[in-house]
Amino acid sequence: MTGFKRTILTAEKSDKVSGVLQQRLVDLVDLALQLKQAHWCVVGNNFRAVHLQLDEIIVDVRAGSDEVAERISALGVAPDGRSQRVASSTKLAEISAGFESTKDTISVVADRLQTTIEGLRDSIEKLDDLDLISQDMLIAISASLEKHLWMVQSQEL
Amino acid sequence: MTGFKRTILTAEKSDKVSGVLQQRLVDLVDLALQLKQAHWCVVGNNFRAVHLQLDEIIVDVRAGSDEVAERISALGVAPDGRSQRVASSTKLAEISAGFESTKDTISVVADRLQTTIEGLRDSIEKLDDLDLISQDMLIAISASLEKHLWMVQSQEL
Amino acid sequence: MTGFKRTILTAEKSDKVSGVLQQRLVDLVDLALQLKQAHWCVVGNNFRAVHLQLDEIIVDVRAGSDEVAERISALGVAPDGRSQRVASSTKLAEISAGFESTKDTISVVADRLQTTIEGLRDSIEKLDDLDLISQDMLIAISASLEKHLWMVQSQEL
Amino acid sequence: MTGFKRTILTAEKSDKVSGVLQQRLVDLVDLALQLKQAHWCVVGNNFRAVHLQLDEIIVDVRAGSDEVAERISALGVAPDGRSQRVASSTKLAEISAGFESTKDTISVVADRLQTTIEGLRDSIEKLDDLDLISQDMLIAISASLEKHLWMVQSQEL
Amino acid sequence: MTGFKRTILTAEKSDKVSGVLQQRLVDLVDLALQLKQAHWCVVGNNFRAVHLQLDEIIVDVRAGSDEVAERISALGVAPDGRSQRVASSTKLAEISAGFESTKDTISVVADRLQTTIEGLRDSIEKLDDLDLISQDMLIAISASLEKHLWMVQSQEL
Amino acid sequence: MTGFKRTILTAEKSDKVSGVLQQRLVDLVDLALQLKQAHWCVVGNNFRAVHLQLDEIIVDVRAGSDEVAERISALGVAPDGRSQRVASSTKLAEISAGFESTKDTISVVADRLQTTIEGLRDSIEKLDDLDLISQDMLIAISASLEKHLWMVQSQEL
Amino acid sequence: MTGFKRTILTAEKSDKVSGVLQQRLVDLVDLALQLKQAHWCVVGNNFRAVHLQLDEIIVDVRAGSDEVAERISALGVAPDGRSQRVASSTKLAEISAGFESTKDTISVVADRLQTTIEGLRDSIEKLDDLDLISQDMLIAISASLEKHLWMVQSQEL
Amino acid sequence: MTGFKRTILTAEKSDKVSGVLQQRLVDLVDLALQLKQAHWCVVGNNFRAVHLQLDEIIVDVRAGSDEVAERISALGVAPDGRSQRVASSTKLAEISAGFESTKDTISVVADRLQTTIEGLRDSIEKLDDLDLISQDMLIAISASLEKHLWMVQSQEL
Amino acid sequence: MTGFKRTILTAEKSDKVSGVLQQRLVDLVDLALQLKQAHWCVVGNNFRAVHLQLDEIIVDVRAGSDEVAERISALGVAPDGRSQRVASSTKLAEISAGFESTKDTISVVADRLQTTIEGLRDSIEKLDDLDLISQDMLIAISASLEKHLWMVQSQEL
Amino acid sequence: MTGFKRTILTAEKSDKVSGVLQQRLVDLVDLALQLKQAHWCVVGNNFRAVHLQLDEIIVDVRAGSDEVAERISALGVAPDGRSQRVASSTKLAEISAGFESTKDTISVVADRLQTTIEGLRDSIEKLDDLDLISQDMLIAISASLEKHLWMVQSQEL
Amino acid sequence: MTGFKRTILTAEKSDKVSGVLQQRLVDLVDLALQLKQAHWCVVGNNFRAVHLQLDEIIVDVRAGSDEVAERISALGVAPDGRSQRVASSTKLAEISAGFESTKDTISVVADRLQTTIEGLRDSIEKLDDLDLISQDMLIAISASLEKHLWMVQSQEL
Amino acid sequence: MTGFKRTILTAEKSDKVSGVLQQRLVDLVDLALQLKQAHWCVVGNNFRAVHLQLDEIIVDVRAGSDEVAERISALGVAPDGRSQRVASSTKLAEISAGFESTKDTISVVADRLQTTIEGLRDSIEKLDDLDLISQDMLIAISASLEKHLWMVQSQEL
Repeated sequence: MTGFKRTILTAEKSDKVSGVLQQRLVDLVDLALQLKQAHWCVVGNNFRAVHLQLDEIIVDVRAGSDEVAERISALGVAPDGRSQRVASSTKLAEISAGFESTKDTISVVADRLQTTIEGLRDSIEKLDDLDLISQDMLIAISASLEKHLWMVQSQEL
Repeated sequence: MTGFKRTILTAEKSDKVSGVLQQRLVDLVDLALQLKQAHWCVVGNNFRAVHLQLDEIIVDVRAGSDEVAERISALGVAPDGRSQRVASSTKLAEISAGFESTKDTISVVADRLQTTIEGLRDSIEKLDDLDLISQDMLIAISASLEKHLWMVQSQEL
Repeated sequence: MTGFKRTILTAEKSDKVSGVLQQRLVDLVDLALQLKQAHWCVVGNNFRAVHLQLDEIIVDVRAGSDEVAERISALGVAPDGRSQRVASSTKLAEISAGFESTKDTISVVADRLQTTIEGLRDSIEKLDDLDLISQDMLIAISASLEKHLWMVQSQEL
Repeated sequence: MTGFKRTILTAEKSDKVSGVLQQRLVDLVDLALQLKQAHWCVVGNNFRAVHLQLDEIIVDVRAGSDEVAERISALGVAPDGRSQRVASSTKLAEISAGFESTKDTISVVADRLQTTIEGLRDSIEKLDDLDLISQDMLIAISASLEKHLWMVQSQEL
Repeated sequence: MTGFKRTILTAEKSDKVSGVLQQRLVDLVDLALQLKQAHWCVVGNNFRAVHLQLDEIIVDVRAGSDEVAERISALGVAPDGRSQRVASSTKLAEISAGFESTKDTISVVADRLQTTIEGLRDSIEKLDDLDLISQDMLIAISASLEKHLWMVQSQEL
Repeated sequence: MTGFKRTILTAEKSDKVSGVLQQRLVDLVDLALQLKQAHWCVVGNNFRAVHLQLDEIIVDVRAGSDEVAERISALGVAPDGRSQRVASSTKLAEISAGFESTKDTISVVADRLQTTIEGLRDSIEKLDDLDLISQDMLIAISASLEKHLWMVQSQEL
Repeated sequence: MTGFKRTILTAEKSDKVSGVLQQRLVDLVDLALQLKQAHWCVVGNNFRAVHLQLDEIIVDVRAGSDEVAERISALGVAPDGRSQRVASSTKLAEISAGFESTKDTISVVADRLQTTIEGLRDSIEKLDDLDLISQDMLIAISASLEKHLWMVQSQEL
Repeated sequence: MTGFKRTILTAEKSDKVSGVLQQRLVDLVDLALQLKQAHWCVVGNNFRAVHLQLDEIIVDVRAGSDEVAERISALGVAPDGRSQRVASSTKLAEISAGFESTKDTISVVADRLQTTIEGLRDSIEKLDDLDLISQDMLIAISASLEKHLWMVQSQEL
Repeated sequence: MTGFKRTILTAEKSDKVSGVLQQRLVDLVDLALQLKQAHWCVVGNNFRAVHLQLDEIIVDVRAGSDEVAERISALGVAPDGRSQRVASSTKLAEISAGFESTKDTISVVADRLQTTIEGLRDSIEKLDDLDLISQDMLIAISASLEKHLWMVQSQEL
Repeated sequence: MTGFKRTILTAEKSDKVSGVLQQRLVDLVDLALQLKQAHWCVVGNNFRAVHLQLDEIIVDVRAGSDEVAERISALGVAPDGRSQRVASSTKLAEISAGFESTKDTISVVADRLQTTIEGLRDSIEKLDDLDLISQDMLIAISASLEKHLWMVQSQEL
Repeated sequence: MTGFKRTILTAEKSDKVSGVLQQRLVDLVDLALQLKQAHWCVVGNNFRAVHLQLDEIIVDVRAGSDEVAERISALGVAPDGRSQRVASSTKLAEISAGFESTKDTISVVADRLQTTIEGLRDSIEKLDDLDLISQDMLIAISASLEKHLWMVQSQEL
Repeated sequence: MTGFKRTILTAEKSDKVSGVLQQRLVDLVDLALQLKQAHWCVVGNNFRAVHLQLDEIIVDVRAGSDEVAERISALGVAPDGRSQRVASSTKLAEISAGFESTKDTISVVADRLQTTIEGLRDSIEKLDDLDLISQDMLIAISASLEKHLWMVQSQEL
C-alpha cells in the first residue's frame, strides 16, 4: 500500500479489486507485445492490410493497459507491468518466433484476443459487487477487443 | 531467413547486422516497459512533471524499437520482441516493483538510459563496416536518448 | 450463425442478445431516414436552426446504428438493415411526405425520438442478465437520444 | 408545390426535373443502405480492405443523396426519402440477408453501382434541355460512382 | 486588351465572354455588399441564426466574384469591380438603410438572390456557344446561390 | 416540472433522480470555483506544474457539471447552479482566501476531490434502481475525479 | 500582500488597482454562473440558437474573469472568486430559478450584461491614472461584452 | 436610433461616436474594393508577390470594416456600407480601371492606405473624450494598416 | 480491353474517348516533368516567387494527370504514362537543359501551358457527343490551367 | 530616414518615438538571448518545468521584439538589433555563464523581466503624447511580461 | 556551371558529386513514373491495398527526386529530369503497358525498387570521400526504399 | 563540467567536442540575429519575397542553434550564447546598420551563410574521430544551410 492519506474503497475491497486488475494488466501488456511481434513478422498475400490492422489493435490495447495500471495506482496499490512479471504470469500462450503467413497470423491473433476477452469477462463479473467504476472500465476495454476479434476472425471464413 | 527473392546485403552481412540489431531491439522494448512501470509507480514531490516526462521518452523509445525491428525484417530476418525473450536477454538491470519517489525514479531511469546508450554506441561502431543505413538509424536513436538522459539526470544536481 | 471459430457468448445468449439488438437496429436506421426526410422538408420560421439541429442528431443516430449492427456481427449473427426490412418492421410511425412547418417537424421528431428511446430502455432492461457489454452500448446511445429529445421538445414550450 | 414566392424554373420544368431527380434520390438512398448492409455482413479473405472501401463509397453516396434531395427542395417540390418509399420504388435489386464472402460482396456491390449509374446517365440526358444545373450535379455524382465501380470491379479480375 | 502574348479564345469571343461576365461581376460584388449591410442591420426575433446565415452566403458570393473577375483577366480583359462602377451599373435594387426586422431582411435577401440568379442563368445560356469553361464556372456559382435561395425563402412559409 | 409533453421516467422516479443529481451539481460547480481559486492563488516551489494541473482538472469538472445539469433538464426538472444556491448548499468545506503554498494547495484540493467523490459514489448506489443512464453518467465523472485524486495526492508522498 | 520580491506598481497603487479589479472579478464570475443557469433552463421557440449563443458568451466571460484574477495576482494581491464571496458581493441581481422562456432569458441576460458593462466602464475611468495595463485589459473585456449585448438585445426588437 | 432598451453611451455621445465611425466604415469598405480591383488588374514583373500581398491586406481591411460596422450597431445606430453610399462619400481617390503595372499598383495602394490611416488617426483623436472602447478598436486597425503601408511602400525604394 | 464485366459506355465510345484522353495524359505527365525541371533550374531576380509558383502549378497538373489516367482505366482501357511513351508522343516542345533566367522560364512555361490548353480544348469539343463526364473532367482541368497561364504570362508585361 | 514617400508621424515625432523604441528593442533581444541561455543551462530539481516555462516566455519576447523592430521601420527609421549593439547598449545586467540551479535561474530571470518591464513602463509614459499606436503596442508587450514575472517569481515563495 | 559566386565544394568535387547524383535523379524520376503506371493499371484480388501502397511509395520517391535535384543545383550544376533524358538513360527496365494482376505488379515493383537501391548503395560508397552531406541524403532515401522493398516483396511469400 | 553522474563520452572527448560545437553555436546565434536585422531593414523591389525568405531561414537557423546548445549541455558542458560572447567571438563579419536594398541584402546574407557553412564543414571533419552523433547533427544543419545558400545566391544571377 502507498500510504495515500485518502482512500476510495475500503482496504479489503482495494486489495481484491487491484488483485483482479493486476492479472488483466499482465495480459494486456503481453497482448500488445505479441501483436507487435505479429506486426513485424507477418508475410504473404494481404500483408499490408493485416500489418496495418494489427497496429490499430495495438493502439487500443495499449490505451487499455494504461488505464488498468493507473486505476490500480489510484486504488493505492502499485501495478506491475515489468517484462519479467509479464513473461512469467501472462495467461496468453506464447507466440512462436519467426516469420508467419497472414493466415496463421490471423489465427494466432484471434486466439490471443479470445483469451484476453475471457479474462476480462471473468473480471467484469467479479467486480460487480466490488467496484462499479473498475467494472465499467473493463466493459469498455472488452467491448473494443470483442469488436477487433470479429474483424480479425471474419477473415478466416 | 525468409527466402525473400531480393536481398539488400550479402547473406553474411545480413546475419551480422541483424544479430547486432536484435540485442538493441530487446533493450529498447525492455526500456519502454520499464519506463511505463516508472510512469505508473512514481510518487512524491514533482510527480506530474516526471510522470509526463516519462511518457515523452516512451514515445521516442517505442518509435526506436519499431524502426529497429522493421529494419531486421527488411534484411530478411525475423526480429524477436516477445516478453519471454525480452525478460531473459535484456541488458538492462531489473527495475524494482512498488511505488518509488521521484528522486529514485529519476536515478533509475537515468541508469537505464545510460545502459541502452552504451549498447547503441557499441553497435554503431560495429556497423561502420557492415551497413551504413543501419548505422545511421542507430545514430538517430542514440542522439534522441542522449538528449533525454541529459534532461533526466540534470534533475539530480 | 456465421460459423466463427471463437464465440464470446453461449449460442443461446448470442441468439437472445442479437434478437434484442436487431429490432433496435431497425428503429435506428429508420430514425435516421426520417430525420433526413425532416431535414429536407422542414420550412418556415426558424428553418435554419432546426435544419442544422436535425443533422446533428443524425450524426449520433448513424453512429448508434453502426455500433449496434457491428455488435450483432461480433456476436456471430448477420444484422439486417435493408430498406425492405426497415420499412416493414420499424416500430416508428410513418412520417408524412411533403413540406412541414418547423412546429410540426419538432413535434414529429420528438415523438420518433421518444419511441426509439422506449425501445432502447426496454432492451437495456432485457440485457441486464444477458450481456453487460451490449447493455452498456445501448445505455450510451439512449443517453445521447434522451439529451436530443430534451433539446427538441424544449422548443415546444 | 411549396408556394415559394420565388421560382427558379417554370412550373412545368420544375415538375419534370424534380420527377427525374426523385427516382435518383430513391436509388441513392437505397444504395447507401445496401452498402452499409454489405459493410456489416462481409466476411472472408481481404475483409478489412473491402470493409473500409465500402465506407468510403458510402460517404460519396450519402453526399450525393443529400445534394439531390436538397436540389428537389430548392425547386419547390418535397423530396421523398422515407424507408417505405425507398423499399417500394428503388430500381436496385434487393441484396440478400446474411453474411457474404468478399468475392460475392464485390460482385453485388458492382452490380448495384452499375444500376445506379445507368439511372444517373439516363437522367443526365433527360436534363439536357431542362436544367443545366441539375444536370451538372448528376454528372459529378455519376463521375464519382463510375470511379468507384472501376475500383470495385477491378478486384474481380 | 492586355497585350498578353498568348490567347485562349479568339479576340471576338474574348470580347463577348468578358462582356457577359463583367455584368455578373458587378451583381456579385453588390450582392456581397448588400448581404453585409443586412448582416449588420438585421434585428429582432431569430437575429442570431439569420446573422450567421448571411455570413455563410457572403463567403460563397465573394468566392464567386473572385472567380469571375479572375476569369475576365485570364481572357485578357481588365475586370471592373470599383464602388463607382458597382453603384451605377448593378442590376440589384437598392437595399434600404437602417435596421430591419429578420422578416423583412429575409424577404429582401431572397429578392436579391433571385435577381442575381436570373442574371447568371441568362449568361449561362449565352455562353453555350462561346466558352464552355466560363459557362461551367457560372453553373457552379448559380447552383450555390439557388441552394441559398431555398434556405432563405423557406423561412417565409 | 416543465410540462414537457414526453417523459422518459415516471414522475416519481424523475423527482428522485433529479433530487440526487441536484446535490451533485452544486458540489461540482463549487469544486470548479475552488479549483480556479487555487489556480490563481497557489505560490511556491513547483508553482507552474500545479497551476497547469489544476486547469486540467477544471476542464473535467466543468464538463461534469454541464452533463449533470443538462441531465436534470432532460428529466423535466430545472437544475439550480446559481452562486447563492452553490454557496449555501455545497457539501465542500470552504477554501481559505489568500495565497497558498503548493503543498497546502495540494492537500486542500485532494480533500475537496475526496468529498466530491464520496458524494458521487453515494449517488451511484442510490441510482441503481432508479435510472441506469444517470448512474452511468456519474460513474464516468467519478472515474475521472478518482484518477485526478491519485495524481494530486501522490504528490504528498 | 504576497511578499513578492519585485513589484510592478507602488504599494499604494497596487492596493487601489486590485481593489477595483476584485469587484469586477466577482461580477464576471457571477455572470458566467448566471449564463450557465440560463443555458440550462431556457425553453421555448428558438431554444437552440439562444442555448448556443449563451455558451459563446460564457467562453468570453470566463476568459475575462481568468485575466482579471491573474492580473490581481500579478500585482501581488490574492484574488477572491469563491462561491461565498461571489454570492454575497456580486453587483448582479439574482436570476430566478426554474425554466424560462427564450424571451425572458434574453431580457434577463441583456440586463446582466448591462450591469457588468457599467461596472467595467466605471473601473476603466478609475484606472486611467493608476495603471494603463489593467485599464487596457478591462477595455478589451468590455468591448467584447458590449458586442454580445448588442447581439442579445437586438433580438428583443 | 434602434430603440434598444439598454444603452452603453448617452444619446449624445452615441451620436457623435457613430458619426465618426460611419466615415471610417465607408473608407474601409472602399479600400477593400480598391484592393480587390488592384489584385485582379495588376500585371508585370513580380506579379505573384504583389497579387498575394494584396489579398493579405484585404483580410485585415475586411476584418476592420466588420468591426467598425458592428460597433456602430452596438451603439444603437444603423451603419451604412451600401455601394451607393460608399461610392458617393468615400474619402479615397478613385482608382483607375484597366490593367496596371506592379510599380503603379504599389504606388496607388500606398496612397490609398495613407488616406485611410489619416482618417483613422483623426478619428482616434476625436474619440479620446468620447469612447475609449471605440478608440482602442481604431488604434488596432490603424496599427495593422500602418504596418501594411510600410511593407507596400518599402518596395518603392 | 480489360474484360471488366460491366461497362459504362459502348465499346466503340470507350475506344474513342480513351483515345482522346490518352494524348491528354501524355501531355499532362510531360508538363509536370517540364515544370519540375523549370522549378529546379530557374535562377535570377525573383527566383523564389517563380520557384514557389511552379510547385503550385505542378500540384494541379499532377492531380489532372491522375484523374485522366484513372478515367481511362474506369472505361476499361489501360492508360500509358511511362517515360518512353511520354518522351516519344508528347505534344509539348522539349524544354532546354541548364539553368534559365526567371524571364526565360516564365516564357517557356507559358508556352507549354498554352500547348496543353489547346489540346484540352480540342478534346473538350470532341467529347461533346461521346461522354459528358469525361468532358466535364477536362473542362475543370483546363479551367485551372487557363488561370495559371494568366498568372504566369501576366509577369511578362 | 528611409526616404519613404509617405509618413505617418511628423519627422520630429518619428525621431522621438523611434528613439524610445530602439532601446526597448535592444532590451527585448537581449532578454530573449538570456532566456535561451537560462533554458540551456538550468539544472536541478524541477528542471523540466522551468526549462519549458522559459521557452514559453521566449515565444512572447521574440514576438515583442519583432513587433517593436517592425514598428520602427514603419516609422521610416532603421532598427538596430545586431549582436554588437545589443551587447553594448542593453539595460539588462549580464547573466553568468555556466550551469545554474533552478532556484538561481528563477531569481535571475525574474530580475531581468523586472528590468525589461521598468523600461517598457517608462516608455509607455513617454509615448502618451507622441504616438498612441506605439504606446498600445508596448502596453500589450508589458502586460504579457508582467504576467510572466508573476508566474516566475511566485516560485520563490 | 552556374557561375554562382560562392561554392561549397571544389570545382572538381562538385563535378564528381553532381555526376553521381544525376544518374540517381534519373532513376528516381523513372521509378515514380513506373509506380504511377502500376498504380493505374493494377487489377485483381487485393487491388485496393496495392493501389494505396503504391501511392505511399510514390510520395517518398518524389520527395527523394526533389531532394537530389535541388542538391545538384545547390552544387552549381543544372540537374536534368526531362522525359527524354529519363527515357534514354534510366537504369530501370521498362515496365510493360496494359493491365497487370496484383501478383505481377508486386513482382515488377519489387524488381524496380531493388535496381534503384543498388544504384543508391553504389553512390553512397562513391560519395564517402567526396561529400558527406550528399551521402547522408542518399542514405536516408535508400533507407526509405529498403523498407518499402520489404513491405512489397513480403507479399510474395 | 557539470558533475553529471553519467557520461556519454570520455572527459577528453567531451572537452574537444564541446569546444568545436561552442564556436558553431556562436556563429548560428549571430547568423539568426543578422538575418533578423536584414529582415527588418530590407527595402526595395521584391521586398516581400526576400522578407519572407529570411524568416524561413531564421526558423532553420534557430532550430540549429538550439540543437547545438543542447548537445553541448548533454555532453556535460555549459554552452554560452550570451550577447556579449556572441558579439566578441562570432566568425561572421558585422552586418551594416540602416536600410539595405534587396540586392545588397541578398549578397550579404549569402556571404554570411557561406561563412557559417565553412565553419560547419570544418567541424564535421574534426568530429569524424570524436563523436559520430554530434557529426550527424552538424551534417543535417549544414545540409539545410547549403540549400538556403543556393536559394539566396541564385537570385544574384
